[in-house]
Amino acid sequence: MRFHLIYPAASNQIPMSTAPAYSELCRVYARLYRYYHLGAIVGWDRNAMMPPKGNAARAAAEAELNALIHRTRTDQRVADWLRAAEEESLDAVERANLREMRRDWRDANALPESLVEAKTLAGAKCEHAWRSQRPANDWRGFLENFRVVVRLAREEAQLLADDTGFTRYDALMDRFEPGVRAADIERIFGDVKQWLPGLIARVQAKQRDEQVIAPVAPFPAAAQRAMNLTVMKLLGFDFEAGRLDESTHPFSGGVPEDVRLTTRYREDDFVQSLMGTIHETGHARFEQNLPRAWLGQPIGVARSYGIHESQSLSFEMQLARSRGFVGLLAPMLAAHFGRQPAFAADNLSRLLTRVKPGFIRVEADEVTYPAHVILRYEIERALIEGEIEAEDIPALWDEKMQTLLGLDTRGDFRRGCMQDVHWSEGAFGYFPSYTLGAMYAAQWFAAMRRAAPDLDARIAAGDLAPVFEWLGANIWSQASRWDTPELVRRASGEALNPAHLRAHLEARYLIRLS
Amino acid sequence: MRFHLIYPAASNQIPMSTAPAYSELCRVYARLYRYYHLGAIVGWDRNAMMPPKGNAARAAAEAELNALIHRTRTDQRVADWLRAAEEESLDAVERANLREMRRDWRDANALPESLVEAKTLAGAKCEHAWRSQRPANDWRGFLENFRVVVRLAREEAQLLADDTGFTRYDALMDRFEPGVRAADIERIFGDVKQWLPGLIARVQAKQRDEQVIAPVAPFPAAAQRAMNLTVMKLLGFDFEAGRLDESTHPFSGGVPEDVRLTTRYREDDFVQSLMGTIHETGHARFEQNLPRAWLGQPIGVARSYGIHESQSLSFEMQLARSRGFVGLLAPMLAAHFGRQPAFAADNLSRLLTRVKPGFIRVEADEVTYPAHVILRYEIERALIEGEIEAEDIPALWDEKMQTLLGLDTRGDFRRGCMQDVHWSEGAFGYFPSYTLGAMYAAQWFAAMRRAAPDLDARIAAGDLAPVFEWLGANIWSQASRWDTPELVRRASGEALNPAHLRAHLEARYLIRLS
Repeated sequence: MRFHLIYPAASNQIPMSTAPAYSELCRVYARLYRYYHLGAIVGWDRNAMMPPKGNAARAAAEAELNALIHRTRTDQRVADWLRAAEEESLDAVERANLREMRRDWRDANALPESLVEAKTLAGAKCEHAWRSQRPANDWRGFLENFRVVVRLAREEAQLLADDTGFTRYDALMDRFEPGVRAADIERIFGDVKQWLPGLIARVQAKQRDEQVIAPVAPFPAAAQRAMNLTVMKLLGFDFEAGRLDESTHPFSGGVPEDVRLTTRYREDDFVQSLMGTIHETGHARFEQNLPRAWLGQPIGVARSYGIHESQSLSFEMQLARSRGFVGLLAPMLAAHFGRQPAFAADNLSRLLTRVKPGFIRVEADEVTYPAHVILRYEIERALIEGEIEAEDIPALWDEKMQTLLGLDTRGDFRRGCMQDVHWSEGAFGYFPSYTLGAMYAAQWFAAMRRAAPDLDARIAAGDLAPVFEWLGANIWSQASRWDTPELVRRASGEALNPAHLRAHLEARYLIRLS
Repeated sequence: MRFHLIYPAASNQIPMSTAPAYSELCRVYARLYRYYHLGAIVGWDRNAMMPPKGNAARAAAEAELNALIHRTRTDQRVADWLRAAEEESLDAVERANLREMRRDWRDANALPESLVEAKTLAGAKCEHAWRSQRPANDWRGFLENFRVVVRLAREEAQLLADDTGFTRYDALMDRFEPGVRAADIERIFGDVKQWLPGLIARVQAKQRDEQVIAPVAPFPAAAQRAMNLTVMKLLGFDFEAGRLDESTHPFSGGVPEDVRLTTRYREDDFVQSLMGTIHETGHARFEQNLPRAWLGQPIGVARSYGIHESQSLSFEMQLARSRGFVGLLAPMLAAHFGRQPAFAADNLSRLLTRVKPGFIRVEADEVTYPAHVILRYEIERALIEGEIEAEDIPALWDEKMQTLLGLDTRGDFRRGCMQDVHWSEGAFGYFPSYTLGAMYAAQWFAAMRRAAPDLDARIAAGDLAPVFEWLGANIWSQASRWDTPELVRRASGEALNPAHLRAHLEARYLIRLS
């Protein structure tokens, strides 16, 4: 115990405004931003650093912080200021910030505390039991808890729907993807369902005779870490404003000023950790490049879950598995793990673009992944809207897996409808974001290629600046300035268009252009 | 960004009581405990993990938390409840907890906010300039800022004195060493001054012809870390409730449920990191063994800075440099760094007990260390009481260094009165705790040897249980149950008695018994 005084330090910049109510709101959100900072760092610590016996005290401390944040977000004065600020003279950025403040107010206040509490308890109970029910393939046991989760999620959706005028499912999804509606998703996923099964079959036929040399293990953790750090550097991660550590479940955490990535190492396989790190680096660069002037305010937050995922997938799928980038990876792998035939660039490229329909979403390649998401979306939308009940899920799951991927999951709940944590926790409306992210990413790269026709040659030459500049100007710097559809139009000149994902998959997997 | 719900978690246990005002106070302090938890973890992170660009946002977040803690501690309702709780029927432990709550209330409320702010600014300014003024030996420049620091510290001391009825210096010191007064220190340090210079001279004479083989570097950081972990294990550190990491300035941080130690490695020297780690492990075991039932309440906090230091010095000085323990260290060193002549137990023992008067307090051995503290105490007491002014310090410093250690510091401010950070920050009243800690530690070991006459033989045999059991029963489990003098009497059967430190030093350095 070294003696040390703690100094109150310089405070974050709070936007200057002559509008009094709006200024009060800015102060509240600046305070919230600092509370979130504390939560982000202790949350990272819990996952990456904390020894087991620290858990109970940490849970209490985090709950106290969450209660404080909740009190701050639901303070009645915030509602008064929101009303008053509407009448104030604000510029366009201030108006957008105010719009996001209203969203946040609605998120925090739409649900009565009793429902939040009931949801939390039911979700925690269901999720906890799920951890052992899933390996035991115990759908019946799961169903008992899950029915309660569904009932409460419908109640929540109804209240949010009453508040917003959206349908129940739209109201849930709007929290993750502001401005995107189920009608949009139906149109987009309907299109994908037309061509995806055929595409998968053609890719499989094409890959049937491909020779792929498997990498020879072991890949020591220290060498993997060094390799990951090298790639992160190439990808522009700012190590003065972030770190890479290890955790059981890899994630991107921390705060925009100090992004904390984690990965995990298996000595028999480097691909998982490497591609996972590249994925998280995509998230990280978004956070690290959010506009500094807006940090601390709701307008300064990364737009949506789908847009965030579009950054990780821009890095992991669009960029890192492109033939040009694989050519950069190949010598780096040889340098870190020693030379071996599997590291030849062409072989590596084949290895990183293998397509194989499988049961498990999180293990799926980029071609079959949308099928997993479409299936989940269709089931959860119908479930929330009351068109089906929880017990109908397995039959629907099997039917859709058969149609989309040609797989039989009958009786296999473990690798079927019980595989994800989302539903057990009551998180409905989130799944579409994964595939929206993939589509946005394809759309960004199509726009990038229009702007820089030599993009792939430059990537192959190790010049990634055009990628970073485009994403920086069109996505990172925009934060929450626009709702998602408007952001997409401004960035790419058109609404979300699944044709770009299709063209990307066909080019890479059938024609092998990129 | 993986999607994850945050669950409010089970809260810390709050003591059950039928006394309504007292119960409200317990709830406030349980909340504060959780806020401190957040501060402790992000503080540890700042020192051990945070990349440089995270600093501004972290400072803002920590300042926000400190403001919240200050608001909570100074809430007028706390004063009301404190008054009401006085009239309630409380048991002895509750009374002691209430006493500590009152102490905390006084600490938080004695000073007007304007003074706290002025002090903070002046201390920060002085300390910041000191960082470059010290290497430049610029006393004149330092003095300019330091005069302001002194003026504000006197104001603070006066207000605390008015509030407590103590003298000005006593009022400052009481925050660090509850119940100990300058009159006690005068008596104790007066005694030490009688025998210390003579003892130092005799030890030096005795060591003059001793042959000590120096260890041969390098000592790789990874091997040092492994060595430190092994020793921490031997010393009973619970790795399920804590960690060892690295930082520029080693410290013991975290929370009782999750103690975070740090050290730093220099490849040319293992002793600093090893003994530093043992020192911090002493602090850590106190924290890890505070009584669980009291955690979250003021009574559950480690007693005082001096008592805390008595634990680190019990480990580092009393135990780890004893001949028996050095016999345990010797083979461990050989196992981690390879065999070398310096690691022979007798040589190692000589190496770890070399005495040499020097200019720098933090580099001092345990024999000369009290001289550094006595000098500082005498100067800072006179300064706070207004008997001297800041410009008188260098002459006094030199005179006392001459008398106590026979060293000439004239004109050398860098290695003289500008060497410590404490004064520049305005932290007066803390220095005595270092030597009180050394005296308490000697007194504990004297009591231990009375209880277990075979103590040294058992230590030499690797059986440290009697040490841990005595400290656990008499210090760790007592937390803040008693004020410091009462704790000392209960633990050792007598008031603080500097004869034990003297006997320890004479036994180890002149007779070489332990």
